[in-house]
Amino acid sequence: MTIENAKKAAGRAAADLIKNDMIVGLGTGSTANYFIEALSFRVKQGLYLKAVVPSSKRSHDLAKSLGLPAQDINQVPYIDITVDGADEIDPLKRMIKGGGGAHVREKILAVNSREMVVIIDETKLVSKVGVGKLPVEILFFGSPATRNALEKKGYFGKWRLNEDGSFFITENTNLTYDVVFDTPPLYPEQVHEEMIHIPGVIDTGFFFDIAGRVVVGYFDGHFEIQ
Amino acid sequence: MTIENAKKAAGRAAADLIKNDMIVGLGTGSTANYFIEALSFRVKQGLYLKAVVPSSKRSHDLAKSLGLPAQDINQVPYIDITVDGADEIDPLKRMIKGGGGAHVREKILAVNSREMVVIIDETKLVSKVGVGKLPVEILFFGSPATRNALEKKGYFGKWRLNEDGSFFITENTNLTYDVVFDTPPLYPEQVHEEMIHIPGVIDTGFFFDIAGRVVVGYFDGHFEIQ
Repeated sequence: MTIENAKKAAGRAAADLIKNDMIVGLGTGSTANYFIEALSFRVKQGLYLKAVVPSSKRSHDLAKSLGLPAQDINQVPYIDITVDGADEIDPLKRMIKGGGGAHVREKILAVNSREMVVIIDETKLVSKVGVGKLPVEILFFGSPATRNALEKKGYFGKWRLNEDGSFFITENTNLTYDVVFDTPPLYPEQVHEEMIHIPGVIDTGFFFDIAGRVVVGYFDGHFEIQ
Repeated sequence: MTIENAKKAAGRAAADLIKNDMIVGLGTGSTANYFIEALSFRVKQGLYLKAVVPSSKRSHDLAKSLGLPAQDINQVPYIDITVDGADEIDPLKRMIKGGGGAHVREKILAVNSREMVVIIDETKLVSKVGVGKLPVEILFFGSPATRNALEKKGYFGKWRLNEDGSFFITENTNLTYDVVFDTPPLYPEQVHEEMIHIPGVIDTGFFFDIAGRVVVGYFDGHFEIQ
């Protein structure tokens, strides 16, 4: 009865959705890691994959260490399914991602896949997205001014830092600004629009109209596909 | 009666708009270079600048070599005026920039300045923007898929290359895709919206509602301020 059981259940259930000859996108994060492990187990049992396409160096390294045929996104002609976690998801399947710092690459991978399968533990189900932080990827050049522009629109937060206090740098060599809402926004789409129109903002952690099937793992170890 | 005369006239006229104690943003490109040179001449004559803020390494190096007090955008509290060129500008002051490959940084600098002064030679005046190429800055990760997404929406072009055939990499370490229109788009704002909603697209070379005064230099060496 732990959150790890729930994550593992979702990861394993998603691995069972993968079919022979597929090209599979790999998300980043703890639940995605369970999926990658379960996927490698299926491959050892005989599943044939054309390729797996990681969204980060971490997922790439894990996939390689488990013997999965990792390829760069720029080398594959298409992606059948991307399986990735989420920080929050609402009943309309609107999501927030980016707790792991890879949301921009994850979004590129997801929108370029025939389906994005979302794998979450039950704690990620929310009635409205914006309960926790919203990661926003920001160009280093002019970043104090870009932050000011966000604050002028009422979006306050803080730069994501590494444990040693230095700035967290994404694999796209940008900064991450974690916005915190007083209350979840009524119209998250509008928040996203406002933010992406600020020069210097690369993208937000909001994912709209991207999620396909959602695999929810529960603490008792069972799962549901929505 | 040359284009260089026209560029020089615009650059010099813009330098005359700068006042004591200002913090001045510096664009990138041939016309911006004339401005930077004229500005350094005024400083030698006694103009005092708190700082100049370059939009690129090239402008930074030129400013430093001319003795201007170059500072990083992230180190200054505000910017009074940014002076920069444009590839095209229409009667509504809508612009296309990015021929020099620095449009994303130039836009950040411009929107964070109290005024952007545009300096152009007369050949840059167009009735509709989109006569020449529209530079679009794109993340390397997933760039073939991002290009496909642009093409699906009808936006065709080519990757910008260096003279040796390698990819041109922006100072933000991204690629540049130069879109070519069959005819200038009727609603450039709509084109911009479509493009920036594609994950992987950082920003386009369209500048809307950003230009302040426009200094136009003519081949015969005179200028006009619009």
